This record gives sequence, C-alpha cells and structure tokens, in this order.
Amino acid sequence: MKHKVVFYPDNKQVEVEEGENLLRAAMAAEVSISASCGGDGTCGKCRVIIEKGVVEQKPTSRLTTKEIEQGYVLACLSEIKSDLEVRIPPESRPGKFVEREKLPESHILSARGWKEYLSSWQRHPPIRKFYIEMVPPVLSDNMDDLRRIRRTLSKDHGLRAAVDADLSVLKYMARILREADWRVTVTLLESDLRAKIVKIEPGDTAKKNYAVAIDVGTTTIGARLIDLNECVVLSQESDYNAQVSCGEDVISRMVFSNKKDGLVKLQSLVVGTINELIAKLVSRSGVEFSDISCLVLAGNTIMTHLLLGLTPKHIREAPYVPTTTNFSWIKAKEFGIDVLEDTYAHCFPCVASYVGGDIVAGVLASGMSRSDKLTLYIDIGTNGEIVLGNADWLVACSCSAGPAFEGGGVKHGMRATKGAIEQIRIDRNNYEPMILTIGQSKPAGICGSGLIDALAEMFLSRIVDQRGKINPGIDSPRIREGEHGLEYVLAWAGEAVNGQDIVVAEVDIDNLIRAKAAIFAGISILLESVNVDMSNVEEIFIAGAFGNYLEIERVQMIGLLPEYSFEKVKFVGNGSLAGASIGSLSKEILNEAKKVAEKMTYLELSADVNFMDKYISALFLPHTNIELFPMVMKKLENK
Amino acid sequence: MKHKVVFYPDNKQVEVEEGENLLRAAMAAEVSISASCGGDGTCGKCRVIIEKGVVEQKPTSRLTTKEIEQGYVLACLSEIKSDLEVRIPPESRPGKFVEREKLPESHILSARGWKEYLSSWQRHPPIRKFYIEMVPPVLSDNMDDLRRIRRTLSKDHGLRAAVDADLSVLKYMARILREADWRVTVTLLESDLRAKIVKIEPGDTAKKNYAVAIDVGTTTIGARLIDLNECVVLSQESDYNAQVSCGEDVISRMVFSNKKDGLVKLQSLVVGTINELIAKLVSRSGVEFSDISCLVLAGNTIMTHLLLGLTPKHIREAPYVPTTTNFSWIKAKEFGIDVLEDTYAHCFPCVASYVGGDIVAGVLASGMSRSDKLTLYIDIGTNGEIVLGNADWLVACSCSAGPAFEGGGVKHGMRATKGAIEQIRIDRNNYEPMILTIGQSKPAGICGSGLIDALAEMFLSRIVDQRGKINPGIDSPRIREGEHGLEYVLAWAGEAVNGQDIVVAEVDIDNLIRAKAAIFAGISILLESVNVDMSNVEEIFIAGAFGNYLEIERVQMIGLLPEYSFEKVKFVGNGSLAGASIGSLSKEILNEAKKVAEKMTYLELSADVNFMDKYISALFLPHTNIELFPMVMKKLENK
Repeated sequence: MKHKVVFYPDNKQVEVEEGENLLRAAMAAEVSISASCGGDGTCGKCRVIIEKGVVEQKPTSRLTTKEIEQGYVLACLSEIKSDLEVRIPPESRPGKFVEREKLPESHILSARGWKEYLSSWQRHPPIRKFYIEMVPPVLSDNMDDLRRIRRTLSKDHGLRAAVDADLSVLKYMARILREADWRVTVTLLESDLRAKIVKIEPGDTAKKNYAVAIDVGTTTIGARLIDLNECVVLSQESDYNAQVSCGEDVISRMVFSNKKDGLVKLQSLVVGTINELIAKLVSRSGVEFSDISCLVLAGNTIMTHLLLGLTPKHIREAPYVPTTTNFSWIKAKEFGIDVLEDTYAHCFPCVASYVGGDIVAGVLASGMSRSDKLTLYIDIGTNGEIVLGNADWLVACSCSAGPAFEGGGVKHGMRATKGAIEQIRIDRNNYEPMILTIGQSKPAGICGSGLIDALAEMFLSRIVDQRGKINPGIDSPRIREGEHGLEYVLAWAGEAVNGQDIVVAEVDIDNLIRAKAAIFAGISILLESVNVDMSNVEEIFIAGAFGNYLEIERVQMIGLLPEYSFEKVKFVGNGSLAGASIGSLSKEILNEAKKVAEKMTYLELSADVNFMDKYISALFLPHTNIELFPMVMKKLENK
Repeated sequence: MKHKVVFYPDNKQVEVEEGENLLRAAMAAEVSISASCGGDGTCGKCRVIIEKGVVEQKPTSRLTTKEIEQGYVLACLSEIKSDLEVRIPPESRPGKFVEREKLPESHILSARGWKEYLSSWQRHPPIRKFYIEMVPPVLSDNMDDLRRIRRTLSKDHGLRAAVDADLSVLKYMARILREADWRVTVTLLESDLRAKIVKIEPGDTAKKNYAVAIDVGTTTIGARLIDLNECVVLSQESDYNAQVSCGEDVISRMVFSNKKDGLVKLQSLVVGTINELIAKLVSRSGVEFSDISCLVLAGNTIMTHLLLGLTPKHIREAPYVPTTTNFSWIKAKEFGIDVLEDTYAHCFPCVASYVGGDIVAGVLASGMSRSDKLTLYIDIGTNGEIVLGNADWLVACSCSAGPAFEGGGVKHGMRATKGAIEQIRIDRNNYEPMILTIGQSKPAGICGSGLIDALAEMFLSRIVDQRGKINPGIDSPRIREGEHGLEYVLAWAGEAVNGQDIVVAEVDIDNLIRAKAAIFAGISILLESVNVDMSNVEEIFIAGAFGNYLEIERVQMIGLLPEYSFEKVKFVGNGSLAGASIGSLSKEILNEAKKVAEKMTYLELSADVNFMDKYISALFLPHTNIELFPMVMKKLENK
C-alpha cells in the first residue's frame, strides 16, 4: 500500500510504501533535514511535526513530553502508516539546500522486488517434501518399500517421475517406515524426468523445507534462508569472502590458487565463510540444520571453480578456458559444506570464464531472458558484468572494476550492512553532509552506494573537480589533508561507531573513478557490438551488492553508466542472490538457467582494441566528453 | 569343430568338440574305463590304444616307451584332435558295465554357451571408453573443457546423450587434458539418455576396458573378469561366500543380521570375499585394477541387501518386504569394494523377497524373456528358484533347498572347483566307481553334480533303495558303517588329495533328497498355477553352480525334475554369472532386466497349501508315485 507524503514548507511530495522510514522519504523528496547519526535516533536533529496522518515511532528521550504533544517526531524513528503532511521546523534544517529536479518514483525502488518476478514462473522447488500415509504391506500386497513409496507418491501427489533413492537413504528406509507406522515425509530431488529420494523422516515434516540461497561473490558472500513452502526469506546474512586475505580480485585469487596448496586453501576459506553464514542463518531463524534441504549457489566462474575445488588456472591464461560451466546437483558435503549428509547443492551454470552463474542468476531474476524488450543488465561488483539482449538473444561482457563498489580497497569502506553510510546529501553552501546508514544506526563506514552518493555530491558541490581531485581551497573543517592526501570528513569521531572520523579520501575517489570507467567502457563496447545505443535500450536493470538505496541520478552524475531516461531503470539489488533465491523455488528457473547460459554470447573485452581507449576517456567526472552526458551537463550548468 | 570317436570293442561312438578330453568322451559314450585318480594321470589305469586319428597328450611316466610306440595313451591326459578310433584293452576295464540307452548329444552341453546368447542383443556396454583427439582451445573457440569433450564425443563418436561428469573427475580434468595434449580416453557410464564421465586418462587406453561380473550366491560367489572390447572372459574365480560362517542359508543369515552388528559383519564378509576374488582375477590376468571400469553383480534379494548394507529384516518376516528391488549405479567404494574411486557397480534388479537378481540375470541369459516358446528356467542352488513363461508373461517361485547342490552341508562336499568329483559311474556288478574330477586332478571331494550323479548311480546299482537308504547287505568293501551311519566310498584315501577316504554318507543322501523334493514340489506347484504340465513346456533351462557336466538322465533318475524329453533341455551353468556377464556387455540387457523384473509374477509357496503335500511325496527316489516317472520306471524294470 502506498502513501503520499507532503513536506512543508517545501511543498514537496513523494509516494512511498507503507512502513517506509520518514527520513528516507524526506531524502527521496529532496527535502533537507538535519541528520548526523546515520538515522539511529541519537543526534535528535531530525525533528519534524506531523500535521496530518499517522506515523509509528520508536520511543526516544530526545523529545520532551510537550514536544510530543505538539506533534514532534524524530523522522529517523518514524514509520509512515498513512498519507502524511509533515512540517519541517527551521531548527531542523542543516542549511539551505540547492533546489533539485523532481525525481521519478522508481528511484528508490528497493532490492526487495524479486518476489514479484517469481509470479511468472512455475513454483516448483527442485527439492520438495511430501508427507505420505502409506497402506502397510500385507501378503497380498508386498511390493518392496521403495516401490510402495513410489506408488503412494504417484497416487496421492500425482508424481509421475521415475523415483530412486540414494544408498544412504535405502539403508534406513525400512526402519523409518515401520517406526513411523508408514507415515513419513519424503524429500525428493527432481531433475528432468527423474526424482531421487534424498531423505525420509518420520511423521509430517513437509512444512519444514528450507533452502539456503547463496551469492558467492568475490568480495562478499550473501546468504538467505528461504522457506520453500511459504516462499519467504526467513533470514539473510552476508560477510566478506574470507578469500579476500589471498587477493582482492579474481585475478589475484587465481594467482594464489597456483601456489602450493593454494587451491585447497582458497576452497577451505570460501567454504568456511559459507559455513559460518549458514550457522548464523540457522541460529537466528530457529530452523534446524536438518531441515535445510538444499543449497542453491550462484557465483562467477572463478568463484564457482574455487568453491568446488576446480583449478582456475586455465581461466587465467589465454584462451581462458574453464573446466566446466555446467554443474549437476552435488552433495554439499562433497565440497566441504557443513550440512547434513543428505543436503544437495546446485551451482548456477556459467557462460564463460568471465561471465558466471551470478550473472545468469541475475538475468533470470530480472526476467529479461523472457522479455521482448531490449534490456541491459548491469552487475556492479568487483567484476562489472554487462548483459544486453532479450528473449531471443543475449550478449555479455565483463570488466574488472575492483572491490570499491563493495566497500573494498577504500579507507573507510565496508559492506552494505548495518552502520554503512548508504545515502548522503551535502549542503552546497556549508558543505555539511546529511547521512543515512543501513539499519539507521551509528555510522561505521561507507558502502558502495554511499561512496557513489558521496562522489556525486562532492562533485555537485564542487568539493571535487572533473578529475576527482579535492579542492583544498574550500573553507570547511571537513576538507583537510589526511594521512594519504586530501580527504572529506563524512562523520566526526564522536558520531561514529569506532570513535574515528569517517572520511572519503582522494585515493578512494581514484579507485572509484577507475571502477566506474571500466564499467562505462564495457557498456559502450557491448552496445556498439550490436550496433545500438542507450536510447534503443528499453529496460535497464542494475544489480550490485551495494546498499539498497542507490540513486539513479547519482549513478549518472559520476558517469558510471551512459545517460538514459530514469523511467527505464530498475534496481535488482543483489541479482545473483535474487536468482539463487528464485532458483531454489523453481525447477523451471534452474532449467531455464541452463538455456540462458547456453544462449548467451560472450564478448571478450581483452580482445577488443577499443576498450582501453574508452576506459581512459571515462576516467573523468562524468566523462572526458561531457557531451555524452547532456542531462548532467544541464544540471551542472544550472548551478 | 566336431570329431567322431569310436570305441572298440564296444563299437560305441560319440561326437564331441575338438579338444575334448578322451576320458570324458568315453563316459559320454557309456564306455567303461578304469579311472580312480579323478583324471589327473596318476593312477595310470585308463590306458587305451589309438588305432586311428590324432590325440594330443600330456607327458606321463605311467607309460613305457614301448607302450607309447604301440599307440597307448592315458585317456585322461589326451585331447581329441581328429576323428578317432580307440581300442580299450581288457586290463583297462573296471568290470563289466550294464548296457545303457544312448543319450542325446545335448547331455554334455557345457555352461560355456552364454556367448552365443549375446549375439541377439545390442553389444553396447553400459560403461564404454572413447579415445578422443580434441582440437585445442584458442581464443576464438574457448568453450569450457567439459563442453569440448562433449563436442568431440558427438562429432567423432556420434554420441548424442547429455554428458556430465563427477566432481572427482572435474577436479583433474583440466590438468589431464593439457598434460595429455588433448588426447585422452574418456570412460562413460551411460544410462537412459544421460551419460556421465567417470574417468579421463591420458592417451589411448580404450582397449583396456574391463568389467567384473559377479554372482553373489548364498553359498558360492563366482566372479569373471571380462574384456568389454573383445567380449571374452579373461579369468574366472569362485569361492565360498565368507558369510557361510554366519549361517548356511538365507534364513539363518537374516537371523544373524538381526544381532548386534550382525548386518555390518555380514556385509563386510561378503565384500571381503568379493575383494579377494577381484584381487585374484586381476593378479592372474595381468589386468590393472585401474582398468576395471565397472562391476555388474547379480544375487538373490537377500544377498543383494546384505551386500549393500540394507537390512533384510522385513524380508524374513511376513509379509516379506525388501527395501528395494531396483538398484541404480553406485560407486563400488560406497559399499566397501576394494576398487578405485571411479569404479561403478550395478546390481541386477530383483523381483521379490525370494526371487532375486540372480534369477533375473539367468532368465536374461537364457533368452526366455524374448522367446515365444513356453519355457521353464530352474536355478538349482541353496535356494531353488523356478521361472515359467515366455516373452509375454513370467511367473516365478522359490523353494529353500539348502546348500547340498553346492556341496554344502555334505560330509565331503565341496564347490565345483578343481578336484571336485563331478561325474561318477558305478559298475553294476562289482560296485566299483569310475570318477572324473573338475580339472582332472586328484579327487578332493564331491560337488553338487557329482552328488546327483552318485545318488543316481547308487540308486541304479541298488546300493540305495527308494527311500535313499544304503543297503548294508551288499558285498563290497566300499559299503561300510561310518562315523555317522552307512556310507559308500567313492575314492580311497591313497587316491585322494587329503589322504582321506571320500564317501557319500546316508545323511548326505537325506540332505540331497530333501533338496530335490523341494525343487520338484516347487516346479509342480508352478506348473499347476498356470494349468500346464511338463509336456506343454517347450524349452527347459537348468542353471546351477554345480559342475559343468551334470547329466540330464541322472537328474531325472533321482526325481529332481518332473520327467520331460531330453531334447528340450539346456544347461546354462551359473545363469546368474552368465547374466551378469552379458549385462556388463550390453546396456540393452540391463534395461531389459528391469522390465523382466517388473513383469515377473511372484508366487509365494509358503502361502500354498499344496506345497508341503507335494514336498513329502517327493521324498522318494524318484517319487512316491513312480508312475510320474515312466522313463525311470522303464529303466528300472530293464534291470
């Protein structure tokens, strides 16, 4: 349910989902409110008056009883429950904000939209549980146990597939059936026309059927515990891939894997991270380990190889050949995952050495492989992968961006988790920032989307120039010479979790500009390869493990993507995790994934002479050739 | 090539295969020659004179140079190489033999005939090896390694199946392909429309593709090493199933399996026997362990359960339910077989608790499941299983015979291996035996077929009466009171391997009569169940792990089978091993086995009120109702 929120005296309005945070709504409406604690209610600066409508607010000691009676709330602690009229008192203004154009609604479309995509697919998890009540055998009907199960599945659940069972299951089958008085729950792994019984439990446990969907990222591993019956996410966790200690990008990982025992070490590190994440998911949700029926994993080709213990050696060397791009269901124990013996795992198929299962998963989640529209899918991560196409054809390329978008290699960078600064506004006059963190708690660092926001705002407010250099002449205590050159202070030590100033340094900006240039160049080459330009593209999906509130305007401001109209854009958040999630819920999607991987044509950028030219031209804000960015140009001219 | 052998002065002739042993030919021709050493050339009694033709004889010190010049040979050491005329000198006669009817040729049809059956099937082993020379990857053709293998298999070998690979194979795939310069041999396991790469070796090893076919018998385990390319048996071994120490028949094994750790022990015992047999096969043939691509096993339902570690508990108790009767390909290591990681095993499907994969294998080997003729298949072992039917329908039953037919539970019983007395003639006048052993070596004991032969001969020569009781009034040193009652001495201590008299005791005869009565009763019930009698049966296959030279006339004489015409009979020897052998050579046969197992109707004898009546009536020689055996009656009247 959507609600309209009007802010006075600005008279700006925005439409948001019920339950949205009022401070975020204010940011979306480009209304300026003081906020320095990241949104956790401690600074008490974001006081607003509710003139009409209902908000639900968390208790705070920052407001007096009298203020509360007058209608004051802290915006950061308020959830929108109806249409609202909100007044911002003068004391809550950080200073005068530059006026902006109104942004289209979709700009805060969150990453939570994957469930809607699923509706167009058959909901038939590859691993299902069936509670069956069998007719016990008698002399006149004494077929073997397995056949009796098969007959009951066919009769009661219409299951037509040939059913067999793992030896490990056969070993306890007879006992369980009889102990449970022929009332058992059978867990079936279905693929093609075959089905395999992977577990039999006494009684009715059909309701307890969970999958863990995992995005095996180079920098970050994200995992979700999914209730396969209810089609809901029970909990979600992420952490840095422990392999980071062996190298920041896939190239350095591959170099490491070539050392003595390197591959074994890398495998055990990534498996270790996954095991910890699963343990957290389980302990947090109260689900039993034994009720996890399967894992569905999506990772780039190199991550998938390392996860399974396959050497990536020949991916690194020309002609860049993986061992395989297609993976069967495997017992998760077989590659070290700390689950029960009978838990199976499936890795999303990859396309080529540098376009992996994470992209295939994301493409599936976006729906573009079934769309008639010319669609661009961009995954912004340590590798930037770009896919162009529709239901008929798909072409993909990959460019190494480095870990900046995931907060890696950045001084105060962090993953998009609690405390990460993900949204920033900088006052054009006094250079004071307004920040919002994930989870609205004290700021702990800055994540990818925060970094993009920061750079865009620093550029708009002229703190940095087109080359990304900080202007030392600006008169603000926030701009100063740091340990490694010039830096801008986003949050002071007293406001931050670690008691340290949180800064964006010039070197961080350099990293980010290189990363965005690589992606911009990749997109350009891909579009040229099929002779289209951005105006022909009808739909754009942006995926990435940065925060949920990445704003299109900011993305465009720094020249990360070629210019396009805002209406075409959807953020899919972590597309890989979204694809793995919906894959765990639909056999059909896993089958389609194979077809998508087959169909996708891979364009090798290292073989493309134009790539380096385009990359170098993009090492500016937004680009050496500003005319490629007429909207940005207009905005800059407006100032 | 066949040769005609005429014996003088008897003027009897017989047609035999080239290479047949001359003493066996004499037995077949019902010609009486002295022979007490089992045919190993030590007693020197079987001297004959070759008057025309050629024999190849092994050296002997039992003949003088002069005798050799005169044309003397020892029959037991002579291989027939041409048509022959042979004279038996008076000194080589054990006494005057009773004249017999001429037997049809098929009566010495050996168990070696399985290869001819195979000709009607597609020769397409379920595990095949392909040597491929791949085009190495280049930048313009850099598909993943697995796909490259698939493409080459499709292009060069027309392989259309979807091909995937075990994780264990994927792990070394990249290295092997490159080290071997893209020339490798791929081992494929094919089932239905899928194929799985289970091994990749450098260079061309396609010629080295071997299977081990195994009959997992209750008493005896037989194993053959088969060259899957050449379709020949390289070596063959058998041994008692080490489980015998835990009980002689399936019932006692099942009782044992219910004890603490009983199942684990039984499994490890049978696996131990199989491991030893494989080790022997390998060491004898010079084949490498690593070149064994697969195992194909056939055993009764209980043996298959014990082999795989599945509890047979509910097979024993009404309503007699196995865990499963259908088995997928499993890694042999998974149930303890001592082969390489990548060796797969397949167990023949079973029909019901007491009709197993051994019978399905035998039925396949006999060809009856494709025949228009009404066929009876009888497997005479520790369990007697009987199948009646044709290509359209099959009905089966099982009756417990005990281990007597495999030499078990018999005082001097032994398996049908070297030194086992397998053929016996007893002189009607002086009660002296003429014996032939397997391998024609010194007698060591008596096997199943020898026991049948012995009982038939003792009955014909009136040493035993209709009840199987030895006549103590006969004047011969060979008939005497032994430790456990009356007995007949087949070989004296001085002639025997162990330096002990080899005897057939009355208790042994009792065991044998009970065993044959069970089988006779089973056949009778089965025939009645479909309302036919023996005269309607057009073809009869007799399988069993007894010696190769079981003679139909003898089988009939003791009333083991209802009377029938000799022409209808074929011995298939170890039908289970034959089926496992041809199964390893033909995917089509393994598929057909599933259909046969599905199609076969099981008749539970324990539920049949007539069975016990029929059994008791059959506890006579040949039967209480002698009129059921007109041919035997005629023969007895002739005397």
